[in-house]
Amino acid sequence: MRLFAIQVREFLVIFLLLFSVTTFSQHPSIMITQKNLPGIIHGFTQYSLLKKSLEQVKPIADEAIANPINVPVPKDGGGGFTHEQHKKNYQYILACGTVYQITKEKKYAQFVKDILLNYASQYEQWPLHPQKKPSNPAGKIFWQNLNDCVWQVYVIQGYDLVYDYLTLQERITIEQHLFIPVVRFLMEENKETFNRIHNHGTWAVAAVGITGYVMNQKDWVEKALKGSRKDGTSGFLAQLSQLFSPDGYYTEGPYYQRYALLPFLLFAKAIDQYDPQFKIFEYSNGVLKKAIHTALQLTYTNGAFFPVNDALKDKTFESEELVYGVDIAYADISTDADLLDVAQKQNRVIISDAGFKVAKDIAAGKSKTFVYKSLWIKDGNQGDEGGLGILRAGENKDQQCVLLKASAQGMGHGHFDRLNLLYYDHGVEIFSDYGSARFLNIETKSGGEYLPENKTWAKQTVAHNTVVVDQASHFAGDLNKAQAAHPQLIYFNSRKDLQVISAEEKNAYKGIGMTRTIALVNLKELEKPLLIDIFKIRSDSEHQYDLPYWYQGHITNTPFHMQSNVKRLEPLGKDYGYQHIWLNAVGKSSTGNASITFLQNNRFYTATFLTDSSTQIEFVMVGANDPNFNLRNEKGFILSQPKAKDHLFISLIESHGNTNPTAETTVDFKGKVQGLKLVTDSEDISCFQFLIDNKNYTVTINYKSAQAFISVK
Amino acid sequence: MRLFAIQVREFLVIFLLLFSVTTFSQHPSIMITQKNLPGIIHGFTQYSLLKKSLEQVKPIADEAIANPINVPVPKDGGGGFTHEQHKKNYQYILACGTVYQITKEKKYAQFVKDILLNYASQYEQWPLHPQKKPSNPAGKIFWQNLNDCVWQVYVIQGYDLVYDYLTLQERITIEQHLFIPVVRFLMEENKETFNRIHNHGTWAVAAVGITGYVMNQKDWVEKALKGSRKDGTSGFLAQLSQLFSPDGYYTEGPYYQRYALLPFLLFAKAIDQYDPQFKIFEYSNGVLKKAIHTALQLTYTNGAFFPVNDALKDKTFESEELVYGVDIAYADISTDADLLDVAQKQNRVIISDAGFKVAKDIAAGKSKTFVYKSLWIKDGNQGDEGGLGILRAGENKDQQCVLLKASAQGMGHGHFDRLNLLYYDHGVEIFSDYGSARFLNIETKSGGEYLPENKTWAKQTVAHNTVVVDQASHFAGDLNKAQAAHPQLIYFNSRKDLQVISAEEKNAYKGIGMTRTIALVNLKELEKPLLIDIFKIRSDSEHQYDLPYWYQGHITNTPFHMQSNVKRLEPLGKDYGYQHIWLNAVGKSSTGNASITFLQNNRFYTATFLTDSSTQIEFVMVGANDPNFNLRNEKGFILSQPKAKDHLFISLIESHGNTNPTAETTVDFKGKVQGLKLVTDSEDISCFQFLIDNKNYTVTINYKSAQAFISVK
Repeated sequence: MRLFAIQVREFLVIFLLLFSVTTFSQHPSIMITQKNLPGIIHGFTQYSLLKKSLEQVKPIADEAIANPINVPVPKDGGGGFTHEQHKKNYQYILACGTVYQITKEKKYAQFVKDILLNYASQYEQWPLHPQKKPSNPAGKIFWQNLNDCVWQVYVIQGYDLVYDYLTLQERITIEQHLFIPVVRFLMEENKETFNRIHNHGTWAVAAVGITGYVMNQKDWVEKALKGSRKDGTSGFLAQLSQLFSPDGYYTEGPYYQRYALLPFLLFAKAIDQYDPQFKIFEYSNGVLKKAIHTALQLTYTNGAFFPVNDALKDKTFESEELVYGVDIAYADISTDADLLDVAQKQNRVIISDAGFKVAKDIAAGKSKTFVYKSLWIKDGNQGDEGGLGILRAGENKDQQCVLLKASAQGMGHGHFDRLNLLYYDHGVEIFSDYGSARFLNIETKSGGEYLPENKTWAKQTVAHNTVVVDQASHFAGDLNKAQAAHPQLIYFNSRKDLQVISAEEKNAYKGIGMTRTIALVNLKELEKPLLIDIFKIRSDSEHQYDLPYWYQGHITNTPFHMQSNVKRLEPLGKDYGYQHIWLNAVGKSSTGNASITFLQNNRFYTATFLTDSSTQIEFVMVGANDPNFNLRNEKGFILSQPKAKDHLFISLIESHGNTNPTAETTVDFKGKVQGLKLVTDSEDISCFQFLIDNKNYTVTINYKSAQAFISVK
Repeated sequence: MRLFAIQVREFLVIFLLLFSVTTFSQHPSIMITQKNLPGIIHGFTQYSLLKKSLEQVKPIADEAIANPINVPVPKDGGGGFTHEQHKKNYQYILACGTVYQITKEKKYAQFVKDILLNYASQYEQWPLHPQKKPSNPAGKIFWQNLNDCVWQVYVIQGYDLVYDYLTLQERITIEQHLFIPVVRFLMEENKETFNRIHNHGTWAVAAVGITGYVMNQKDWVEKALKGSRKDGTSGFLAQLSQLFSPDGYYTEGPYYQRYALLPFLLFAKAIDQYDPQFKIFEYSNGVLKKAIHTALQLTYTNGAFFPVNDALKDKTFESEELVYGVDIAYADISTDADLLDVAQKQNRVIISDAGFKVAKDIAAGKSKTFVYKSLWIKDGNQGDEGGLGILRAGENKDQQCVLLKASAQGMGHGHFDRLNLLYYDHGVEIFSDYGSARFLNIETKSGGEYLPENKTWAKQTVAHNTVVVDQASHFAGDLNKAQAAHPQLIYFNSRKDLQVISAEEKNAYKGIGMTRTIALVNLKELEKPLLIDIFKIRSDSEHQYDLPYWYQGHITNTPFHMQSNVKRLEPLGKDYGYQHIWLNAVGKSSTGNASITFLQNNRFYTATFLTDSSTQIEFVMVGANDPNFNLRNEKGFILSQPKAKDHLFISLIESHGNTNPTAETTVDFKGKVQGLKLVTDSEDISCFQFLIDNKNYTVTINYKSAQAFISVK
C-alpha cells in the first residue's frame, strides 16, 4: 500500500511539474528579469557602481566553479564546517546564476545544475540536523529551520536564473527531490513557524512563496500570502500589517529590523513581478517603503544601526539586506534622490533591475545627501506602544545624535532598558549601548549563539544609560511583564535650535514613575548644541536610584574628591548585571554639582550634573564574574542616589574643543557650564539654572504644557 | 656707562643690519625660492595634490587675517591659552608668508608685518616663562626653550617670505627688537642647549642658523654649524654625524626620530640653498637621506610609527615632519618613485619647490608602491650598539610585520624593554607596545606632560612583550646602567620563505643571558606565514621568568584549565609596573603545551606555547594603582615560569581565518598547530617539533652557525 501511495504521489508530482513548466516559462523573473537584461548588460560598461558590484559577485561565482562541488551531510552548528559550506553553497548558487545571466557562459549555469542535482540526490535522506537545539525549530541543512528558509530563498533565485539552461528532466529531478521536499518541510512539517507572525515566519513564507512563483504552484503562493489555512490570519500579508508599526518600525529593534526586511523585500519583489495587480508595495499604507526608510533613520552617520536590544554592533547599512532595501525602495517604490547617497556609501548594488537603475541614476548625478531627520518613530502595530525618539544636529559629516528608547519591549530580543539614552557625536559613540553579548558563528564562544552573559549582563537595565531602582532591572527582568507594558510619549519637538523629546515609563517598577526629557539646545556661547538630560523620578517610598552613563573614551578630568579602589576591585552588586561590574572609584562633591570630562575621538565631552551630599559618583568597568572573557571591558560612571523618594537627575553634556595628534594642538579641554543648580521640582515643573561665561541660563520644563513644554532663557 | 654701551650696541646692530640687507637680498630662499615661484603658481592649476595642499594652508592664513592679532604676554603651560596662541601665531606667520608669495595679496604680508612688529614691541620685556620647570631649560614665549626654538624656525621662514614687502625700517625694527634678542637668547643665554648633541640642540642651531642665513649673519651660521666655539665639537655638523647611526637611526626611537628630523631637514635645506658647495645632503655618507628612509621603514603599513620608547601611538608618517622629509628626500636628494606613494598617503605636500616637484611627478604617474623591507637597522653612532630588526611578509594592504627591539637604551626617553617584540598584521596591532603614558597638551592630565605612570608603568619591562626576571625591570630601571650596555645581533636573514632575526642581551640582569629568535616561516598548510618566537634564557641560579604578550583583540578560546578571579581583582605585584596589573585568571595545562586564540580586526590569532606542570598562564589587565584613570586598560597574557635556571620559551603564533560581520560568515576560528614539544635545548642548539594537519615539523636553531642558523623541516 505504502509503495503504491508513493508511486501515485510521484506521478502526481510529475504531472504537476509538467503542467507548471508548460504554463509559465518566463525566467528569470525575480530580481533580474528577461526584459531588463540587455540594459543591465550594457550598463556594466557605463555605470561604475554596477561594474564594481559585478566585480564583487563574479569572484564568488569563479570561486564556486574553481573548486569541486561540496555538499556535505549536515553535521556542524553555526560557524562549523558543514554550516559554513552550505551557506557558501547558497551564495555560490545565486552568484553563479547571476553571472550566468550576465555573461551567458555555460560553466556558471552548469555549476548550479550540478550542485542542485547533488542536493537533490541527498536532501531526502537527511534527518533533522544533529546539532538541533530545544530552543529553536530544527532545520535539516542547518541546525535551525530559519537557516534552511534563508537557504531556500537564495537557492530558488539561482534556480530561476538558470531555469532555461536546464532540461525538463533536470528540472523535474531538482523540483521533485529538492524543492518539493524543502517546501513540504518548511510549510508542513514546520507549519507552526510558517504560520508565525514573526521574522522567522517571514523567512518561511518568503521561501515557500517565491518557490511557488518560480515553480508556478499557486497553492504554495496562496498559503505563503495568507497562511496555511488561507484565511489571512497568518502569512505574508498578516505579517506585513502586524510586524511593523505604522511608521515602519519593527518592534525587535533596528538590528532585527534589518534582518527581517530581506524576506519581506524579496517576496514583495516576486509578488510585484508575478502579481503586479496586488500593488504590494502600497499594501498597508506603503508600510514596506516606510520600513526601509525607517531602517535607514535608525542608523548613525557612520552607517551603524542603533544597537538597542539584541544587536551586533558592527552592523551597518552596508549589510546586504539594506542594499536590497535601498535598491528596491529607489527603483520600485519611489525615486528619492537621497537614497542614492546611501547606495554610494554601500558601494554596491544588487545585480538586478533595481540595482541597474540606482547605478544609472548615480552616474547621472542625481544623488543628494541623505537626509537624517529628528524623529519620533512609533512602535506597536497600531502605533500606540511608545517608540524611539531621535534628535539630530549638525551636518552628516559631524552630527550630534541622541536617541531616547521609549519603545515596547520587542519580544525575546528586547532589553530591559526603558528610557535608555544613546549619544553619538563626531562620527562615533559617546554614551553607548553594549549591544548583545555574542560572537556570531564563533563556535568556541557558546557555539556562536547568544552567550550566557547576554542574559546576565547585556539585557539587564544597568548595562544601559537609564535609571535602575534598588539595583534591580526593570520588571525584575520578567519578559512577560515587560511585554505587557510600554512607555508613553510626553512631548516631541524638532525645532532646529531647541529639539526636545520627553517620554514616561510607569510600569518598570511598582509605584515608581519615571520621565526622561532630553533636549539639544543651541547656546551661542557653545560651539556645539548642549545636550540636556533630565530624568525625573516620582515615588512615595524610598529607593536607591542609579543612573549609569556608559561612555566611550578616556577620562581627562574629575575635579572632585575621589576614593579609588587602587589595590582591590570587587563587584558592585550580586545580581541584575551588577555582579559583572567592577567598582573602580567613588567620588563625592560638596558643591551641589560636579563634572566629568572625557576625551573621545579627539574631542572632549563634559557632563555636569546635580549632586547632593549623599550622591555617589561611581566609576565602574564591566568584567566581573566573567570567567570565559565573554564581556568587553566597557567603562561607565554611575550617578547613584542611595536613598530618595522623588528624585531629579539633571545632566548637561557639552561637546567641546579638540586635540589634533598630527599637529599636536589641544584647545578647550575644559567645559564651560558652571554653577548648575536646581530652582524647583514639582509634579508639573522642573526648573534649573546654570552659567556659561557668566551668562545665566534658566531651563524650565512644563510637563503638562504642550504649548510651553520647555523654555531656555 | 651702561646707557652708552647700549647706544653703541644699537648703532652696531643697525650698521650690521644695513650691511646685511644690502649684501644679500635674495628672498624668499628657503623652502620656496624666487626662481621656482612661477612654476609653483602655475602648478596649482595643474597638480591636484599641490592644489589640495594649498587648500589646507590658505584657510590657516585666512583665519589669521580674519581675527585681531593676538600676542599675549606668555603665561600658560602646554595646552593653555597663551601656549596655544603663540603656537597658532607661528603657524599663521608661515601660512601667511606662503600664501602671500603664491597670491601676492598684500593683506597676508601685512599680517606678518603687523604681528612681527607686535612681537618686536614686547619680546624684550618678557622674562623667563612663569611656567618654567626645573626639568627643562626655560623659554620666554613658551614654558620650555625647545618651543621657542621651534617658534623661531617657523617665524624666520615667514619673515623670509615677506622680506621684500617690508620697508628697511620695518626690517630693522623686527630684526633688532625680535630676532637678534631671540638669537641671543637661544645661542648665548641657552648656550648649553645650543651646544648639546641632542634633538633640542638641533632645534636651537636650526633656529639660529636659518635666521643667520636670512639675516646674512655669517657668524651665527658658523656657530650653528660648528658650535659656539666654532671648533666642530658641537653644532649641526657634529649632531648630524653623531645623532644618527650609520643606518640613519636616531637612538631615542621612531617617535623622536620623526620629531628630530624636522630641524635637520629645514636647516639642511637652507644650507643647500645658501651654501650649495657644502653638499650637505651628502654629508656623513648621506645620513640625512638614510634618516628619512629609515623613519619611513619604522612605520607599519597604516603609517603609524613603531611606538617603542616614549611615543604617542597616533603618530603616523602623515605628520608634518615626514611631509617635509618625503618632499625634500624626493626633490633634493634622490627621486625614489616609491616616496611618491607615501606622499599620496600623506595627501599633501609642503607648498615649496620640493612639494611642487612631488605633486608634478605624482600627476605624471611616476608613483610606485612604497617598498617596505625586512631590515636590520643598526643603532649607535658607530652602528655597533644593537639595533631594530624588522621582518615583513605579504603585500602592503595585508602585511605581517614583526619588530625585535634590540637597540641601545635611547637615553631618557628609552624604555627598559630589551628584546621586546611587536607584531602587526592585517593593518593593525596584534602584540602591542603601550607607548608612553601621556596626554599631550591636556593640562588636566599632569599639565600635558609625561604622566607619573610613564615611569611607573610605560617604561617598565613588564609593560612590554619581553622577559621579566623576578618581577624586576631590566637594569632594575636604572637609566645609567641601561645606557652603558646594549644588545647584540646574533643573526639576520630576510630570505623570503624563512625570515629570521636573533639577538642577545647579556646585561639586563646580572648573571642571566637572554637570546630571542623570531622567524616568519611559510608553511604550505597555513594561509599566512607562522610567527615563531624562541626566547632562550641562561642562568646558573633559579629565577622567576615572566614573558608577557600584550595583545589587542578579544579572547575566543582558552582550551585549558583556568582559575578566574571573578569576584575580586588584586594587583599582580608591588613594583616595576606589576603594581599596575590586575590578575584576572591563571591557567594551567597538563599536556606540555597550551594555546590561546583571540580575535582582532576580524581575524583570528592563536598562540601555541610550551608549558610544564609549573607554568602559569596569567591573564592580566592594566589599571591597578591608577587613581586618576591615567592608564588604558590593555590586556595581556603572561607565560610565567616560577622557578627555573635555564629556560626556553617557545611560542608559535598563527594568523588564521576570519569573521565577516557584514556577510555574517566565520571560517577557521581554530588554529592548526598541534603537539608542540621540545626535542632538545643546549648552549648551542634549540630544537622542537609540532604538527600541522598531521604533518610533523622540526625546527632547529644553531645559535653558533651562520651557515645553518635555522632549519625548518
